[in-house]
Amino acid sequence: MQELTPPIAAERKDSRLDRPELAGYFKRIRRTTEALCAPLATEDYVVQPIADVSPPKWHLAHTTWFFETMFLERLKSDYRVYHPQYAFLFNSYYQSLGDRWNRPQRGVLSRPTVSEVYKYRAAVDQSMLALIDEIPEPDWEAVSRLIVLAINHEQQHQELLVADMKYILGANPLHPVYRAKGAEAPVAGRSGGTNPARAGDLQYVQIPAGLKEIGFEGGGFCYDNEQPRHKVFLQDFLLANRLVTNSAYLEFVLDGGYSDYRHWLSDGWDAVERNGWTSPLFWKQVDGDWYEITLQGLLKLHPEQPVCHVSYYEAEAFASWAGKRLPTEQEWEVAANLNAAAVEDGNFLDSELFQPTPLGPAPGSGQVSQLFGDVWEWTQSAYLPYPGYRHEEGPLGEYKGKFMVNQMVLRGGSCATPKDHFRITYRNFFQPDKRAQFMGIRLAHDR
Amino acid sequence: MQELTPPIAAERKDSRLDRPELAGYFKRIRRTTEALCAPLATEDYVVQPIADVSPPKWHLAHTTWFFETMFLERLKSDYRVYHPQYAFLFNSYYQSLGDRWNRPQRGVLSRPTVSEVYKYRAAVDQSMLALIDEIPEPDWEAVSRLIVLAINHEQQHQELLVADMKYILGANPLHPVYRAKGAEAPVAGRSGGTNPARAGDLQYVQIPAGLKEIGFEGGGFCYDNEQPRHKVFLQDFLLANRLVTNSAYLEFVLDGGYSDYRHWLSDGWDAVERNGWTSPLFWKQVDGDWYEITLQGLLKLHPEQPVCHVSYYEAEAFASWAGKRLPTEQEWEVAANLNAAAVEDGNFLDSELFQPTPLGPAPGSGQVSQLFGDVWEWTQSAYLPYPGYRHEEGPLGEYKGKFMVNQMVLRGGSCATPKDHFRITYRNFFQPDKRAQFMGIRLAHDR
Amino acid sequence: MQELTPPIAAERKDSRLDRPELAGYFKRIRRTTEALCAPLATEDYVVQPIADVSPPKWHLAHTTWFFETMFLERLKSDYRVYHPQYAFLFNSYYQSLGDRWNRPQRGVLSRPTVSEVYKYRAAVDQSMLALIDEIPEPDWEAVSRLIVLAINHEQQHQELLVADMKYILGANPLHPVYRAKGAEAPVAGRSGGTNPARAGDLQYVQIPAGLKEIGFEGGGFCYDNEQPRHKVFLQDFLLANRLVTNSAYLEFVLDGGYSDYRHWLSDGWDAVERNGWTSPLFWKQVDGDWYEITLQGLLKLHPEQPVCHVSYYEAEAFASWAGKRLPTEQEWEVAANLNAAAVEDGNFLDSELFQPTPLGPAPGSGQVSQLFGDVWEWTQSAYLPYPGYRHEEGPLGEYKGKFMVNQMVLRGGSCATPKDHFRITYRNFFQPDKRAQFMGIRLAHDR
Amino acid sequence: MQELTPPIAAERKDSRLDRPELAGYFKRIRRTTEALCAPLATEDYVVQPIADVSPPKWHLAHTTWFFETMFLERLKSDYRVYHPQYAFLFNSYYQSLGDRWNRPQRGVLSRPTVSEVYKYRAAVDQSMLALIDEIPEPDWEAVSRLIVLAINHEQQHQELLVADMKYILGANPLHPVYRAKGAEAPVAGRSGGTNPARAGDLQYVQIPAGLKEIGFEGGGFCYDNEQPRHKVFLQDFLLANRLVTNSAYLEFVLDGGYSDYRHWLSDGWDAVERNGWTSPLFWKQVDGDWYEITLQGLLKLHPEQPVCHVSYYEAEAFASWAGKRLPTEQEWEVAANLNAAAVEDGNFLDSELFQPTPLGPAPGSGQVSQLFGDVWEWTQSAYLPYPGYRHEEGPLGEYKGKFMVNQMVLRGGSCATPKDHFRITYRNFFQPDKRAQFMGIRLAHDR
Repeated sequence: MQELTPPIAAERKDSRLDRPELAGYFKRIRRTTEALCAPLATEDYVVQPIADVSPPKWHLAHTTWFFETMFLERLKSDYRVYHPQYAFLFNSYYQSLGDRWNRPQRGVLSRPTVSEVYKYRAAVDQSMLALIDEIPEPDWEAVSRLIVLAINHEQQHQELLVADMKYILGANPLHPVYRAKGAEAPVAGRSGGTNPARAGDLQYVQIPAGLKEIGFEGGGFCYDNEQPRHKVFLQDFLLANRLVTNSAYLEFVLDGGYSDYRHWLSDGWDAVERNGWTSPLFWKQVDGDWYEITLQGLLKLHPEQPVCHVSYYEAEAFASWAGKRLPTEQEWEVAANLNAAAVEDGNFLDSELFQPTPLGPAPGSGQVSQLFGDVWEWTQSAYLPYPGYRHEEGPLGEYKGKFMVNQMVLRGGSCATPKDHFRITYRNFFQPDKRAQFMGIRLAHDR
Repeated sequence: MQELTPPIAAERKDSRLDRPELAGYFKRIRRTTEALCAPLATEDYVVQPIADVSPPKWHLAHTTWFFETMFLERLKSDYRVYHPQYAFLFNSYYQSLGDRWNRPQRGVLSRPTVSEVYKYRAAVDQSMLALIDEIPEPDWEAVSRLIVLAINHEQQHQELLVADMKYILGANPLHPVYRAKGAEAPVAGRSGGTNPARAGDLQYVQIPAGLKEIGFEGGGFCYDNEQPRHKVFLQDFLLANRLVTNSAYLEFVLDGGYSDYRHWLSDGWDAVERNGWTSPLFWKQVDGDWYEITLQGLLKLHPEQPVCHVSYYEAEAFASWAGKRLPTEQEWEVAANLNAAAVEDGNFLDSELFQPTPLGPAPGSGQVSQLFGDVWEWTQSAYLPYPGYRHEEGPLGEYKGKFMVNQMVLRGGSCATPKDHFRITYRNFFQPDKRAQFMGIRLAHDR
Repeated sequence: MQELTPPIAAERKDSRLDRPELAGYFKRIRRTTEALCAPLATEDYVVQPIADVSPPKWHLAHTTWFFETMFLERLKSDYRVYHPQYAFLFNSYYQSLGDRWNRPQRGVLSRPTVSEVYKYRAAVDQSMLALIDEIPEPDWEAVSRLIVLAINHEQQHQELLVADMKYILGANPLHPVYRAKGAEAPVAGRSGGTNPARAGDLQYVQIPAGLKEIGFEGGGFCYDNEQPRHKVFLQDFLLANRLVTNSAYLEFVLDGGYSDYRHWLSDGWDAVERNGWTSPLFWKQVDGDWYEITLQGLLKLHPEQPVCHVSYYEAEAFASWAGKRLPTEQEWEVAANLNAAAVEDGNFLDSELFQPTPLGPAPGSGQVSQLFGDVWEWTQSAYLPYPGYRHEEGPLGEYKGKFMVNQMVLRGGSCATPKDHFRITYRNFFQPDKRAQFMGIRLAHDR
Repeated sequence: MQELTPPIAAERKDSRLDRPELAGYFKRIRRTTEALCAPLATEDYVVQPIADVSPPKWHLAHTTWFFETMFLERLKSDYRVYHPQYAFLFNSYYQSLGDRWNRPQRGVLSRPTVSEVYKYRAAVDQSMLALIDEIPEPDWEAVSRLIVLAINHEQQHQELLVADMKYILGANPLHPVYRAKGAEAPVAGRSGGTNPARAGDLQYVQIPAGLKEIGFEGGGFCYDNEQPRHKVFLQDFLLANRLVTNSAYLEFVLDGGYSDYRHWLSDGWDAVERNGWTSPLFWKQVDGDWYEITLQGLLKLHPEQPVCHVSYYEAEAFASWAGKRLPTEQEWEVAANLNAAAVEDGNFLDSELFQPTPLGPAPGSGQVSQLFGDVWEWTQSAYLPYPGYRHEEGPLGEYKGKFMVNQMVLRGGSCATPKDHFRITYRNFFQPDKRAQFMGIRLAHDR
């Protein structure tokens, strides 16, 4: 891990990287994925506790197959496919790329073994680096842009990998530890170096009505769903200066929030009853005390940290109970643009790899804090195309567009999001009953 | 049926009806529900082919219970509940109004019999009419507004009832007829009395970008989800002048539309595979010819009529195949406001009751036709609250707000919508896999 | 109903009936089925509360289709099928007789209506009676034997019909009454005309070991599964002189029987947990008192009547709790042969039709009572072929043989079994989790 | 593995082993379990492809927990439980021994790791050997008998382990090999040392009617379900001299056996349709040729080997197609007693461990061959108690008796059955749709 080069800020701000820059970016991200797996036992790489959680081994192989099928098979003249069955085993959902092993059956496959997967990675890495050298100059711009996209794809899997490792270890009654607890939790919005142990007071910042612009524009990389940039009219609204804390959410729990249908959307109430939810995922009551399963094992619930692993239904119900609402993604983006400088201080994944801190969200304070990193923030917006949206050509057209129904948008990145993968215009999305990612709540209200 | 008084236009434009007006409105709507059931055999009132379809008997009783529990039990001093178990049997989803019989089990109940349900209706009608006379003057405005809401609730069930009767008869391999085929199908946009047998040419009408207003405003009745009226910024867009026809949709089918994942949203493709969809609901191929199950029995597919009984997934896939998209609900409402006069000529339910025409959508022609009536038009908008939305107080707060997730908005009413129940601002909504209502497609595209 | 001719004992003891005898037998059984439905409302004919329960309308039509397809279509020269779709709708499970409407969907069909079904019955009856006259003399023996079998088939459906009507009315929270309570319950083993209101003392009758014979032999009608008659060696055993009563079973319930896994077979315990069983089907506790849903409505649990509507799992668990076991079917048949004269006094269905008594089991007393009628007695024997078993030729070969796995044998008939349908060698069989039939418990133990 | 002591024939024929004998027996069986796992990769120990298949890691731990909970916790004065959670994780179905981790979730647990499980085994082994030394003389007979039972329990898990390893590797599209193919397959009934490569001619051996005795009797160990020995009367019957071969079964497949309902029990036909069965488990057609997944990888189907991995439904359907039937377990035991000497030559598990032969069934020839070893033979008998059956006291009472419903008996042992675990009276049992064990077919017919 000490070999990891620090992020080159430039490399993703402008997709016109030169060959050494792209090779360096590629190597760094590939090694990061493996570094994330370092604390695992071989057995942890294999299991799939629920259909939504993939074995770490699968992530390692899938991201590798993605490079192999998108670049090596298409562009490398003398390339021989590494294994004839791997495309079948490690395609996720790209219908245009052939048949796939059934997703809920990923945990059934003991082979290839973990060490075979690492060999696969090494072989593909070597070929990719050779390819980066060999791409004819006229193709460089187009191909290097796609490689950047594939690198971003792997970064996205890093975030899923962290959540899946947490779920795999968390599902085990022995409460195994991913990384032992070290220093105090990092604090978001930590400009000036002060690390408040407590969340600041909850305040609401007013943002006046008007015609605004949102969406990605300019050079550099983005996903197709962030475009085109376009005008929206927003009413006056107020946005909370920080995330909802565990202690605030606990009030909701103790007030009977999970047994009073009045706070809930109809589908949310169904989910509560069907799944027997009584608290966020990973909360656990032992002898009257509240604990939380974390990557550091089973810890006492930290009252000042942002509540995490709640579904949209829970976020919405909490907001309703609190007499507030969730912001829309347009509101969120407008507010984020007003605080764009804070991205640098966000509690993202990368810092985690280089310092002995826990991997988890942290208390927030300050004017408007925790917008970036810590936990993804559920918005009241359904995941739908922007006006004038066009999807990528080819197989990558399946990447974002075909999920534009039945999902809600989350904004702001999390402690499991690689920092240089994040943008203010980044749109994450999940079904409203999902809780396994690092997802939390920021409140808003109308004037 | 001949006793039915014609709709009093005034009565719902302004909720300040006087007592005779409200009594007349009430009687007319209550009788209309029963008139809709007149063609049924006793057995047809009882069955529930799928969980989403309720037995007609249930609709008759549920709307009655709604008046009983909302008004008679609360406001009529000496009122004795008609039957102690009916609240349990006929509550639909109002958690605040007590326990409910499990929805998918409605078709299990042979009792109360149909004639007992009609007796229940008659008794409640009588008490309601007495109540309308007795409401103290100071309460009149508030109570009469709620009674208008409850009447609208029954009208909404009339539309569901038509769809459910179609499903019940349509699910039967004997293809029973609800109403025999009479004269030619009515034609929407029929000003001037000409009834074109064919749909007009498909054209796209341009609507320029700008800051617009949508949502309900003014006197008269509306649901809470249509408010508040608010500004939205729309980009330039073009809207089709008529609905997609059966023949156009058949091209999609014959082009392999249901076996090519590329046209479909991911959840849509899952629905196709899970449900084995190969055409709209009620289409049927017999010896190479295409037929459609209608309320007139099994008929040859009418090429010029609008396609009907398609899910959002199918509407979206068709639009994708056609290189177009669905309009948003904001776009639809803005366009509808430009054609507001056409509401009067819409192919709605009421006309059906007074003339021997089939109950179904009709071919469209003209500048912009079929916006009102015929079939509900799927929009690309998720069903979400308007900015500043507040739900009704009390049990009626459960009526619209708690469904604001996982559903898509439909606009424009259908041939099963009572005309005086409809408004341009009316927001209908269903899950994207639902097909049993009279639902169709109008295309749009960006400039 | 007054036209019903009394059972001709001779007619089924010997299959060589003459034409008037067979015609009389046929008419009597057909009318009995309709008489059983007389108390129903039209709506009751239609519904199907669970997949295992068929709508009464379906029984009426299915038994009719059976005569039509087995005899009229094959043997009546000029016969035109009554309706081309009825074979599809009313075939139960005869694969050799073509496609079938899906069983759990029987309650979806509102058409044909009840009166159409009765017309179908009348038409087929008329043709059948004509056919009985027309069968050529050389075919008489073979054909009349098959007609007797088809009549027995209808009688078997009479029993299912009674249970299904009970379930349909019992599933309704309004507790509708099939037949109002009249005189005292009949008493099994009522020789001498005394009607004990109480069950006699429980005693065990010893039956010595030895080589015995069981299975049907001789003239007259039987199903293929009762043959061949064969030798079995039985150890010494003791058999209870009467059925287990409600009060005895209530002791088991109150002793925590349904919450102690130790009494249960593994699959039985799964069924308890999966279905949430806490008592027999139709038992209901209201304000601390125990009630039972009967065909006379909701009545206080009768302590002296035999427990009824228990599954094999419950019968086996009760026996285990009581330190006893269930008899095998061989043991039962040997004991029954020792008491063969009591068949005449059994509490069967027929008497019910001609006198104003309730339709349900009755208290037993005497030496060995209640062997015949009252409730079917679960045995510890799996339903398997007798040594040397051969199934019927043709479609009727599907009638009994193909169910010889995963089912347990019940013996002795019930209060819903037509008396002249019953034989001592009769083998009834159901899956061990079924409870909807009139099923009860007789204990046995080893010496 | 070279340390393994050869089986002491005496040790299980008589439960009165002395301390060194029992210690030797214990060590040998414990090491055999581990030797069976030697070819596995770590990842193979973890996965659970279907609920019925347990991870090898689980078998290793469960059998260890069984010794710990049954003996060390109860009898060893100073014993401290190895890990407080292991009882929860590794109890299989013993309700009396506390809560259990949900069976279908065994493959979710990555921890304890494989090496932690081996450490657990070593620790318990050491304590058990100490305990064997310490048991007070007066308790020796009772306790040593129970230890023999627990050793048999582990041997039973060895057989399940072999089947589960086959399933785990077989479910993987990479077709991993458990043990590479070595010499020719062993041949059952190999007296004289000749190893016929072909199955002998199919003949039927007649066994005359009469009063027979079956069930275990005498010293030595047996399960409770093999007792008491009792008399049965059998009719004349004929039994095939060898098992049904792959080539004979292939005829059934090619004759359309899986698409003709007439051969099947009703539940069997449902299983065919529900599961999409078209051949035995592990058969696979590639480019027109038939292959079989074996522990040696994917091999061409061996026509002379006995068909294996068929359900009861398939065995019964094949017999029906062939105009024969399956034997009852009584018939099988009577025939086996006539050939008791052949047990020694059976193709059982033990020989496998000491010689480089494949682990699988082998062709049979000779008078009556393959009765012992090769594949378990489905009988037509349901798994039910013998007359006078009494289950063990205490937790072991749950071992066999509570499964006596819904299962069919198999007889004769298989190539995965440890030879010294087998007895002629041994009753194996599975649900009729199970195919994962080494299960095959021997035909019988009536005279």
